[in-house]
Amino acid sequence: MTEQEQKRNYPAKRLEAFAAGALAALGIPQQDAALCAARMIDADLRGVDTHGIFRLNHYSQRIKAGGINLHPKVQTVRENAVTALVDGDNGMGHVVLNFATELAIQKAQAAGLAWVGTFNGNHAGAGAVYSSMPVAHDMIGMYMTVANANHMAPWGGVELILGTNPISFAIPAGSEPPIVLDIATTMTSYGKIKLAAQKGESIPVGWMIDHKGQPLTDPRRSSEGLLVPIGDYKGYGLNVVIGILAGILNGATFGRNVVDFNKDVASRNNSGHMIMAMRVDNFQPVESFKQEMDRVIREIRESKRMQGVDRIWLPGEMEHYKIHERIRKGIPLAPIVISNLRQLAAELNLADRLE
Amino acid sequence: MTEQEQKRNYPAKRLEAFAAGALAALGIPQQDAALCAARMIDADLRGVDTHGIFRLNHYSQRIKAGGINLHPKVQTVRENAVTALVDGDNGMGHVVLNFATELAIQKAQAAGLAWVGTFNGNHAGAGAVYSSMPVAHDMIGMYMTVANANHMAPWGGVELILGTNPISFAIPAGSEPPIVLDIATTMTSYGKIKLAAQKGESIPVGWMIDHKGQPLTDPRRSSEGLLVPIGDYKGYGLNVVIGILAGILNGATFGRNVVDFNKDVASRNNSGHMIMAMRVDNFQPVESFKQEMDRVIREIRESKRMQGVDRIWLPGEMEHYKIHERIRKGIPLAPIVISNLRQLAAELNLADRLE
Repeated sequence: MTEQEQKRNYPAKRLEAFAAGALAALGIPQQDAALCAARMIDADLRGVDTHGIFRLNHYSQRIKAGGINLHPKVQTVRENAVTALVDGDNGMGHVVLNFATELAIQKAQAAGLAWVGTFNGNHAGAGAVYSSMPVAHDMIGMYMTVANANHMAPWGGVELILGTNPISFAIPAGSEPPIVLDIATTMTSYGKIKLAAQKGESIPVGWMIDHKGQPLTDPRRSSEGLLVPIGDYKGYGLNVVIGILAGILNGATFGRNVVDFNKDVASRNNSGHMIMAMRVDNFQPVESFKQEMDRVIREIRESKRMQGVDRIWLPGEMEHYKIHERIRKGIPLAPIVISNLRQLAAELNLADRLE
Repeated sequence: MTEQEQKRNYPAKRLEAFAAGALAALGIPQQDAALCAARMIDADLRGVDTHGIFRLNHYSQRIKAGGINLHPKVQTVRENAVTALVDGDNGMGHVVLNFATELAIQKAQAAGLAWVGTFNGNHAGAGAVYSSMPVAHDMIGMYMTVANANHMAPWGGVELILGTNPISFAIPAGSEPPIVLDIATTMTSYGKIKLAAQKGESIPVGWMIDHKGQPLTDPRRSSEGLLVPIGDYKGYGLNVVIGILAGILNGATFGRNVVDFNKDVASRNNSGHMIMAMRVDNFQPVESFKQEMDRVIREIRESKRMQGVDRIWLPGEMEHYKIHERIRKGIPLAPIVISNLRQLAAELNLADRLE
């Protein structure tokens, strides 16, 4: 609880304005800066603290090192009624993904279904932010991306040529929260391993293995370790499929050519993403679908629980309540995050120093 | 190896003819019987022995009990250029899925992308059989279904209201085998648990948990156990998403209303499936995609291996070689499978007794 108590809450709108101001000061045009900030705070509101404003310092490093195109010409380079390939022109990932997602929604509105792939992008924050955008239009969203660093090996291998490649789905419901899944295809993220190392804690069996395939539980040895895919060879397979659909299909990186965005802030990432949007009413009236969604959601939530379990959660439900809580109470930032943001504000000579 | 030695190989075409003959004798029109048989043997050729001709006795039971409509009017009941909802009219799952997959391919051929959902279907065998059909047309396939029995609980729950809900993807390559993934969202199948019980073997930690969340390793206690989802809560979430996209969206069953097809052979299953087909050339020329696929496949295969590992396999690669081997050497059937099929042949008074 100490850690929690030391956190300080900031209103979402204040953090959004701060991020937009910082990005604008870094040279990103006002409109794009505002858009990036909004998508970043969307992640914070969902409780995905690792993918929101926390990343601002890193984005700033990339921008300063020339790793991001501040004035990208984000454009569709191949297109038909239901698919598109978008060249992100090495712009901020949020700008590229926002463009791609709006395009997918627009096409799906007209045609029922659309799949948009992107290349020449960058880290875009939390996948659920984008997969959820179609939900407001009574559409189902699907999102995949190739992670920006490789911490996993092929199944049976030891070379780090695969990332955490996540997949996300979002599905509207009626009066129940939408179903929103956003999962890496590894048991955990490399960030959580590093955090455990910082705290001097060990990590559970199943998160990492060493080069002999044995469980690695000392996070200080993480450089000798490999992240474990969900379901062993199954998650490895899903990881490769995501790498192909979000990467190779779009002419983006996947495998050894992925640029480690932590180690190299200057090189073009050529990060690839895909986003799909599909109207529910292709298949049945929206209202009947939503009623049935609510019924099944309640059936699952109200099913018999394991001893000691207070509540069964549906995918995305915790995040749904988090959004409401954080809109009301603000977004809690850890002291280290606040101090990093203040330092950035000083560097950029921003009026708002988050005091 | 004793088990292996006792197996007997039958030419694929012979088994296909046998299955078609049996299904026809059960009252299925010749053309549908041939189609079911072909899709069943496709599964056997891939090495998915649990989803091919092995199921014929079970299908026969369902047919005899009136659980299958022998003369279904499989038809599209909702449609636009890129989506369709297909009513399987309680026909054999293979007939319904074959119809849906061909429709998806046809629509994707014209429009670039198509998603077809089905309801009123039945068990259709192996998902990879259908997800792979678009590959011959230089398309990517995606398939999901709601399993026909519930052996898993929601994460934190103990009630068996979820199945193994599988997902399958197939992606063309150049001179390399296509990437084909076909995974249940549980660590293992209930069939493997039952097999271990029969053999008197214990099952690995991670396959099942008991009602207190503790590992269950004695398969004779499987009735007290719950299958474990891949990646714990992650696989649970993916399982629910598949249940919605293959089930609820199509007006098919998911959750408590799933009919356990082992315990109840007479009731209508209302099994739901989805199949998507998407042209590669929406995004880039087929040839450049295939070249890049081959390059990445080789990069993964040739990456550094863990000690004691002979080879790194890509998803679907083992099955690819299995197909070639089984076309050449025939499909090996276990004695119990042969004896069951012979019994069926006798019951149906078939000319071919698989002697």
